[in-house]
Amino acid sequence: MKIAIAQLNPTIGDICGNSNLILEAAKQAQIEGANLLLTPELSLLGYPPRDLLMNPSFIAIATAHLEQLAQALPPELAVIVGTAVPNADAVKLGEKLLFNSAVLLQNGAVQQVFHKRLLPTYDVFDEDRYFEPGQNSNYFTIGEVKIGVTICEDLWNNEEFWGKRSYAGDPISDLTKLGVDLVVNLSASPYSVGKRGVRSAMLQHSAIRSGIPIIYANQVGGNDDIIFDGSSFAVNRQGNLIRVLASFETDFAVLEYDENKQDLMGGGNGQDARSTTDLGLGEGQKLGLIGSGGNRQDARSTTDLSSTTDLSFEPPFGDAEIWAALVLGVRDYVRKCGFSKVVLGLSGGIDSALVAAIASCAIGPENVLGVLMPSPYSSDHSVNDALELARNLGIAIEMLPIGDLMKTYDRTLGDLFLNTTFGIAEENIQSRIRGNLLMAISNKFGHLLLSTGNKSEMSVGYCTLYGDMNGGLAVISDVPKTRVYSLCRWLNAGGYVGAVLSSPDSAIIPVNIINKAPSAELKPGQVDQDSLPAYDVLDDILQRLIEHHESVQQIIAAGHDEAVVKRVVKLVRQSEFKRRQAAPGLKISDRAFGTGWRMPIAKSSSYETHH
Amino acid sequence: MKIAIAQLNPTIGDICGNSNLILEAAKQAQIEGANLLLTPELSLLGYPPRDLLMNPSFIAIATAHLEQLAQALPPELAVIVGTAVPNADAVKLGEKLLFNSAVLLQNGAVQQVFHKRLLPTYDVFDEDRYFEPGQNSNYFTIGEVKIGVTICEDLWNNEEFWGKRSYAGDPISDLTKLGVDLVVNLSASPYSVGKRGVRSAMLQHSAIRSGIPIIYANQVGGNDDIIFDGSSFAVNRQGNLIRVLASFETDFAVLEYDENKQDLMGGGNGQDARSTTDLGLGEGQKLGLIGSGGNRQDARSTTDLSSTTDLSFEPPFGDAEIWAALVLGVRDYVRKCGFSKVVLGLSGGIDSALVAAIASCAIGPENVLGVLMPSPYSSDHSVNDALELARNLGIAIEMLPIGDLMKTYDRTLGDLFLNTTFGIAEENIQSRIRGNLLMAISNKFGHLLLSTGNKSEMSVGYCTLYGDMNGGLAVISDVPKTRVYSLCRWLNAGGYVGAVLSSPDSAIIPVNIINKAPSAELKPGQVDQDSLPAYDVLDDILQRLIEHHESVQQIIAAGHDEAVVKRVVKLVRQSEFKRRQAAPGLKISDRAFGTGWRMPIAKSSSYETHH
Repeated sequence: MKIAIAQLNPTIGDICGNSNLILEAAKQAQIEGANLLLTPELSLLGYPPRDLLMNPSFIAIATAHLEQLAQALPPELAVIVGTAVPNADAVKLGEKLLFNSAVLLQNGAVQQVFHKRLLPTYDVFDEDRYFEPGQNSNYFTIGEVKIGVTICEDLWNNEEFWGKRSYAGDPISDLTKLGVDLVVNLSASPYSVGKRGVRSAMLQHSAIRSGIPIIYANQVGGNDDIIFDGSSFAVNRQGNLIRVLASFETDFAVLEYDENKQDLMGGGNGQDARSTTDLGLGEGQKLGLIGSGGNRQDARSTTDLSSTTDLSFEPPFGDAEIWAALVLGVRDYVRKCGFSKVVLGLSGGIDSALVAAIASCAIGPENVLGVLMPSPYSSDHSVNDALELARNLGIAIEMLPIGDLMKTYDRTLGDLFLNTTFGIAEENIQSRIRGNLLMAISNKFGHLLLSTGNKSEMSVGYCTLYGDMNGGLAVISDVPKTRVYSLCRWLNAGGYVGAVLSSPDSAIIPVNIINKAPSAELKPGQVDQDSLPAYDVLDDILQRLIEHHESVQQIIAAGHDEAVVKRVVKLVRQSEFKRRQAAPGLKISDRAFGTGWRMPIAKSSSYETHH
Repeated sequence: MKIAIAQLNPTIGDICGNSNLILEAAKQAQIEGANLLLTPELSLLGYPPRDLLMNPSFIAIATAHLEQLAQALPPELAVIVGTAVPNADAVKLGEKLLFNSAVLLQNGAVQQVFHKRLLPTYDVFDEDRYFEPGQNSNYFTIGEVKIGVTICEDLWNNEEFWGKRSYAGDPISDLTKLGVDLVVNLSASPYSVGKRGVRSAMLQHSAIRSGIPIIYANQVGGNDDIIFDGSSFAVNRQGNLIRVLASFETDFAVLEYDENKQDLMGGGNGQDARSTTDLGLGEGQKLGLIGSGGNRQDARSTTDLSSTTDLSFEPPFGDAEIWAALVLGVRDYVRKCGFSKVVLGLSGGIDSALVAAIASCAIGPENVLGVLMPSPYSSDHSVNDALELARNLGIAIEMLPIGDLMKTYDRTLGDLFLNTTFGIAEENIQSRIRGNLLMAISNKFGHLLLSTGNKSEMSVGYCTLYGDMNGGLAVISDVPKTRVYSLCRWLNAGGYVGAVLSSPDSAIIPVNIINKAPSAELKPGQVDQDSLPAYDVLDDILQRLIEHHESVQQIIAAGHDEAVVKRVVKLVRQSEFKRRQAAPGLKISDRAFGTGWRMPIAKSSSYETHH
């Protein structure tokens, strides 16, 4: 039996377009002699459809398209499509109106429907808002082969692997009791650093535990803040990774299930074999488990995975995959929002340099416009560094000095600000002048504005609302400053080799940009460390506070200065109002600001620092 | 037996302050001879605490404060406090880490804990993100009286009242079977137009159905976008409303339960009696059921409530209560964020006029600064109307003409914009100049900037991101333009009578502001209706689309022009990126933009208009 995986990149709500993607994949599967085609979770709708699910006409149209698709598909091919299915008993039983379902289409009709049982409600997930959990696990058969069907989170309650139970039910245990021969999983599992290694290690463990091979079909593509990396894979009964699909791009593969051996073929010496540490990036990057991986942010593996997973990696771990994720995130946001070009401010600093490089790689340097907006406080090297960067990348630039505008604001506000001293207000005016100019260019020429703030800044509010925070997409707002440096060094060391960005003789990011002290240049001689602790200190405090939920006491106990910790915590809590109005930011961590970060603004945080 | 209700206004996360509020109420209850004191849902934490609940130290400190509070309270008084309680079995059973609980404190210790069973996940609610649902309903006794304890949503599954079941369980049915004499409810039920009438009608129905009196203790106060109106009340076994606490302010009341009559006393001819149509606003406003009421946005009553509720009302219904809600929302956001003064732009238009009036009422006109920023496109009447408004309200003004800044932007962008025509880019520059000036004043003087856009504009994107959308709080972003007019007319007709705003001889809102054609004045002769349908048409389409989830076909079938409907729908879907970056907006409808509106940005909406 042959099973095809279509690792698709659907657009949210584009039911017609997504249906066509499935149909094209089905034609390919038929050509390659497949009996079954797997698609990702909610493949007909795109994941996550969010409140579109509350629109009855959206559901009605999805239902109609599912029927049309069933009739258009090659009749003999079994195709599993992900969609939202109305819950007929909802009103009678007091249940949610929909199921998150995997629908088996064959011979022109719906043959069987499987409902997702474990509905995540943590981080970016809101599935209880829309869906009723399925009560049972079930399978279908092709020939004599019993194929159990699961959807994403259904496979994430491996109690032995995580050392704890996350849900009452465990679909893979139930399917084992039903005697299935194979488990398939339709997923839309968001990317975060190291997540691919966690997924494969977990399902290798599950395959060994259950003695059942598993095929995991994940969505790929960027949808607003969430990046889906794809990286679909299959493990055989022994827990060997026998096939890994590409990361951060669409892919298609056909696997062989041997009914006699009751296992998936490939791996070992076969041509499809890849080691568990090569998940398709092609950059030779080692992947392994890192501390805070997993769908669940508090998950920790308590299982020794050394037999199946290479845990070794070189710091800085993850630059290659983060780069690829951000490139995909930018490319898809630009495309799916209907843009073809982007604009961004080039300050001569490292953040805008990295974003310009990512954008150039994502949509081509010919579609990137860098705008230099020097002020009297800008140093000479800022302009020169930005110009050198633009040359290296091959992007167009515009130069719009803001000195005249600064003077005109000073004049306009002169009477009102009389006898006050230069401060945050005047600094922010400069940033907002630049924000206005960039948006004017965006509005005039239809370029999407990218904002360039990093996660460290966003955490402590070292950024100007309606100024440098302006933009449709915050490309690196989940990337800590220390990681910004590491990505630039990785890039300059030739980490990324592509037709678009390649600079064999000189660094892509001018070394002066990397070496100089970071500065917002909003007043003479200003550097970031006038206001903030050193970035390696700040980033460690922030990671403990934000990603690991450590208390002030715990962070101090880890060796940080008490006054610094308390100041950082206060800044983080006070900056909530800025983050609430930030552009969607590409998520690469287990705890990003955005849809998975839900903090009150009007609040007291005194409990944190006064106890 | 005497039962006190403390209708408290807690601050989110201010565990120490909230604990003191409870303690003060307990002292008052003791003075008045009460046996039991009720407080709102999560009264120790403030509702909604959102992701603060994911902070282990927050929970630990709440637990410690609960114990301290138990010891500080008058020992004989039974006090029910709302807080989050750790779920000891969470990891073993795969459950959520917390319960949303009502904790009975007496004699210096926790006596009994009741867990919320029905956890809302619709609209602004995310309770499944944090809480495990309680499995059973339970009661405690005072003397011989069995008192059943419920929390907010627990009482919202009255299947007969709603004509449908919203959850599998029904706590009030279970408590009836347990033979309780009285049901108490700790609530944090957000305000929306007409909600008070819905709540009382529902619980009057429940009391009659079960034959059990009910006391409903609701939170009051604004917490970010959500306004809690208070309006706590009690109904006796006959379903009569025997006591109603104040709306939109803190309140305290002591009720008498007669053990012999097995009922709450009061009502009828008693001094505490109020009719169901007077829920404490004191403005003689009639309240009743309107179409889209209820905690659940899709709820519809199918029960004849005419015997207990006055369904008659005069259009425009709700101005008085909306006014009071917005005043509270502004006052609390300003206070709880640590501000004392606000600033806003005064355009001479009706939106900023209404916001200035609300702010003046909320924090006093002496704390409101209006800024006039005329451009060469501003009409003379704009400045004059704004000045007259400021005089009527008694607020300070500043005048900052923006002509010079517009010219300097034109000069700065001159080369780049050569041979392009005046359009959206140039219009937005003006709005963003004003936004920059307002934020400069906010930053310089520590005033909170209020934004003044209405819901109609926010829906169709007729507003400038980083321009007039700037602000810490969007005061009327859930108020449709037609309602903006009705609120101003109501105000001028003397609807609000207060020391702060009273203008017996002339209108508070200058009549010219109400009568002139609305205009953004961003180019010569511009009026809103150049770009948009008439506001009464637009608002009807928007309400059908946004609040009632009607399809394009349904809206057309209701009599609207097809082309207009399709254009409006397209504008709404295309403006998602603006709303994502909007300030928190005070919620007065069943479906506001904000925490209860979760739409993808990068999406296709073609299914809506092409089918």
